[in-house]
Amino acid sequence: MTDYSKIDAYIDSHLNENLEELKRYVAQPSISAQNLGLKECAQLVKEMLEKRGFKAEINATDGAPVVFGERKGKSDKTLLIYNHYDVQPPEPLELWDSPPFQPEIRNGKMYGRGVSDDKAHLTSRLNAIDAILAEEGELPCNIKFIVEGEEETASVHLHDYIKNNLDKLKADACIWEFGGVDHRERPQQYLGLRGICYVELSVTSLSTDVHSGIGGSIFPNAAWRLTWALSSLKGPDERIRIPGFYDDVVQPTDRDREYMEKLPDLAQEYRSRYGVKEFIKGLEGGMELKVEEVFTPTCTICGLTSGYQGPGSKTVQPAFASAKVDFRLVPNQKPEDILKKLRAHLDAEGFQDIEINFLGGEPAARTDPDHPFVKLVVESAEEIYDMPMDIVPMVGGSGPSYPFVHDLGLPVVTMGLGYPETRAHAPNENIRIDLYTQHVKHMTRVIKKFA
Amino acid sequence: MTDYSKIDAYIDSHLNENLEELKRYVAQPSISAQNLGLKECAQLVKEMLEKRGFKAEINATDGAPVVFGERKGKSDKTLLIYNHYDVQPPEPLELWDSPPFQPEIRNGKMYGRGVSDDKAHLTSRLNAIDAILAEEGELPCNIKFIVEGEEETASVHLHDYIKNNLDKLKADACIWEFGGVDHRERPQQYLGLRGICYVELSVTSLSTDVHSGIGGSIFPNAAWRLTWALSSLKGPDERIRIPGFYDDVVQPTDRDREYMEKLPDLAQEYRSRYGVKEFIKGLEGGMELKVEEVFTPTCTICGLTSGYQGPGSKTVQPAFASAKVDFRLVPNQKPEDILKKLRAHLDAEGFQDIEINFLGGEPAARTDPDHPFVKLVVESAEEIYDMPMDIVPMVGGSGPSYPFVHDLGLPVVTMGLGYPETRAHAPNENIRIDLYTQHVKHMTRVIKKFA
Repeated sequence: MTDYSKIDAYIDSHLNENLEELKRYVAQPSISAQNLGLKECAQLVKEMLEKRGFKAEINATDGAPVVFGERKGKSDKTLLIYNHYDVQPPEPLELWDSPPFQPEIRNGKMYGRGVSDDKAHLTSRLNAIDAILAEEGELPCNIKFIVEGEEETASVHLHDYIKNNLDKLKADACIWEFGGVDHRERPQQYLGLRGICYVELSVTSLSTDVHSGIGGSIFPNAAWRLTWALSSLKGPDERIRIPGFYDDVVQPTDRDREYMEKLPDLAQEYRSRYGVKEFIKGLEGGMELKVEEVFTPTCTICGLTSGYQGPGSKTVQPAFASAKVDFRLVPNQKPEDILKKLRAHLDAEGFQDIEINFLGGEPAARTDPDHPFVKLVVESAEEIYDMPMDIVPMVGGSGPSYPFVHDLGLPVVTMGLGYPETRAHAPNENIRIDLYTQHVKHMTRVIKKFA
Repeated sequence: MTDYSKIDAYIDSHLNENLEELKRYVAQPSISAQNLGLKECAQLVKEMLEKRGFKAEINATDGAPVVFGERKGKSDKTLLIYNHYDVQPPEPLELWDSPPFQPEIRNGKMYGRGVSDDKAHLTSRLNAIDAILAEEGELPCNIKFIVEGEEETASVHLHDYIKNNLDKLKADACIWEFGGVDHRERPQQYLGLRGICYVELSVTSLSTDVHSGIGGSIFPNAAWRLTWALSSLKGPDERIRIPGFYDDVVQPTDRDREYMEKLPDLAQEYRSRYGVKEFIKGLEGGMELKVEEVFTPTCTICGLTSGYQGPGSKTVQPAFASAKVDFRLVPNQKPEDILKKLRAHLDAEGFQDIEINFLGGEPAARTDPDHPFVKLVVESAEEIYDMPMDIVPMVGGSGPSYPFVHDLGLPVVTMGLGYPETRAHAPNENIRIDLYTQHVKHMTRVIKKFA
């Protein structure tokens, strides 16, 4: 068995230095939704890769650039690491205890926008490489990094980038951008991501807002049109009414159910963490809740906006209304197909006036839980975390894993430093520094064993 | 026939002075929605009344104070004039060509927030009194002013104020706060106002917003709950589904229809001014449109808000959603009754989670088109405007006229200086100075003939 004591000692003794580098990375705003700081951040990532002897380049896309880096190693095996340098908008600012782009360490945690999602995941992996290089002088295998800048805005240009760079990105396995431990401190291996089809539905009924005393009885009202169109998509029974919506849904297999059975029942956790009084669809917990949570597609209203939204009353008939709607997709649903069916449904229901703006989509993708690379990552985790990694065959979230799985043909595994209170996408986003170090150490094992 | 040449000459020669006084009044912000400048403005109104020899007082209410003023005249008849000193918020500021609280005269118009709604209506009436006093030394009848400060926030405390001051407010006729000419420059006599019941419907489904990847399949979504609850109120057929909603509706009489027949068909005007492509309910114009516009009750969504409303996509399941909804009421619907029926309906439909916040209401009120005071105002208008005043038995808007009509037992007439491009409640609110002078002159006729 390999002795990791020197590598681990190196990691421990360089922690402060590594966290300083992470702070500089977090301090660079890189908000893809607002096209803010992306070029500067891509340049910073390139420099961070070059510092480790990677040949790095900034590749233009029709959106934010992709940073690609590569360093050869001893074996001819290649590990591809996927990360993103963009972050969510920091608003609402008033809810942060320290400024989002002035990272701060308090009580063993570092706070800042993007520190968990996904900046520390990049630096921790670089720190694992630092430790190996310091002790061994070279990498045991080839490592490639693909670091995109549009993950928080649906990775709109990533799929094309991958299709245009299949040779460059060729590899044997892929490590995903995130991962972490659950509320019991047990590391999780997430092996499937749902797909997504994100749309904005909007309607303009008049050329201007009108006093509701005039228009209420005789003019079309944008807010009503939107309300009715949305209600035609899904009713209180939670069944999505778009004809053909469920056609391509693949049910979970018995093997999926075996893995799901082993996972904890989160019903009570959800009740206390999110204030859920009653689950929908009559769900109460157990296998039913676990399976429903991740193996069914959804239609979620993420936002509504129309007319007057300030304090008190304003008697106005709104000319415009819009809704953000995300459909989470399961295998083998395809976003383009859902989009077509959505348009056909709205037309058939008399909602030709509702415009659909497609804001991004990816099909679901899964990695076989029994793949050898999965086993390698899961087994090496136990050395670090002192307990076995849970295999989660599917999670509810989405990400651009489809082209990695289907275009590049890679097993995609998750490992990382996340934990339930990491507050990704929310104020006071943070990482736990103990988990940071554990992830660095776990990465060194995975790289060396994989080689 | 009375000779008005001296009175008119006085009005013409004092125009600039009068407009300067109006400017000082407009320059005093008095935004009831923001509780800004109300006391200062009430004090200013009191001083303006006292300047004309009125005994004036500032009466506290549970909201903004009411200014009451009274001056005795020769006859024992009493005219009550209703105005309000509060104004709408000036936002959006960037759309104003000159600052909203720095009134400015350009091309025969004065611009400023509240200049039309309702400040010039007060000063023009005071200027009519000035002219009569200058020529005759005393008033021909008693005149009382009631000037409230919450008209733009649903006059929440006015009804109680009136009920508590029935003796003080005793009169024989009432002149309403507004009035004016239509797009053909023809003066309008609006004799009925619909009632209103304004509510905010809101729902909280979770203790915090949740990533839609986690919650979409299993947690209740506030935006969906609100959407479904709203859809239960009214469907695309525009029929309001609250049981009993239409129970108390009084249909227009044949006499109402006679008056409505004489009014112009505004279908084309609405198409071009508001960009209406198709009216709802299959309406096309003519009598059907005219009657539907004002004699039917409505359920209007004035605003919707939930979750993420910024650019691009955010995958969030909203914990909170709310809608502003106004019901316009016709005789004899009552807001308290509608509120009860709304609650019962939501409960019966399974929407106990929807909270109702009542933001204000008043029943509809009408004045008989054949009342002698109406005839007096209508006939005297012809001398000033060189064309007959249209009698409009009912309009779509609402106002606190119910206690004037039903508690004080007064005929309520409208006359004023408004015109279609006056932009009340909107940026660049303005008055036409020619219409200002006409209204002052019209007022002198009404006061003298009424006496």
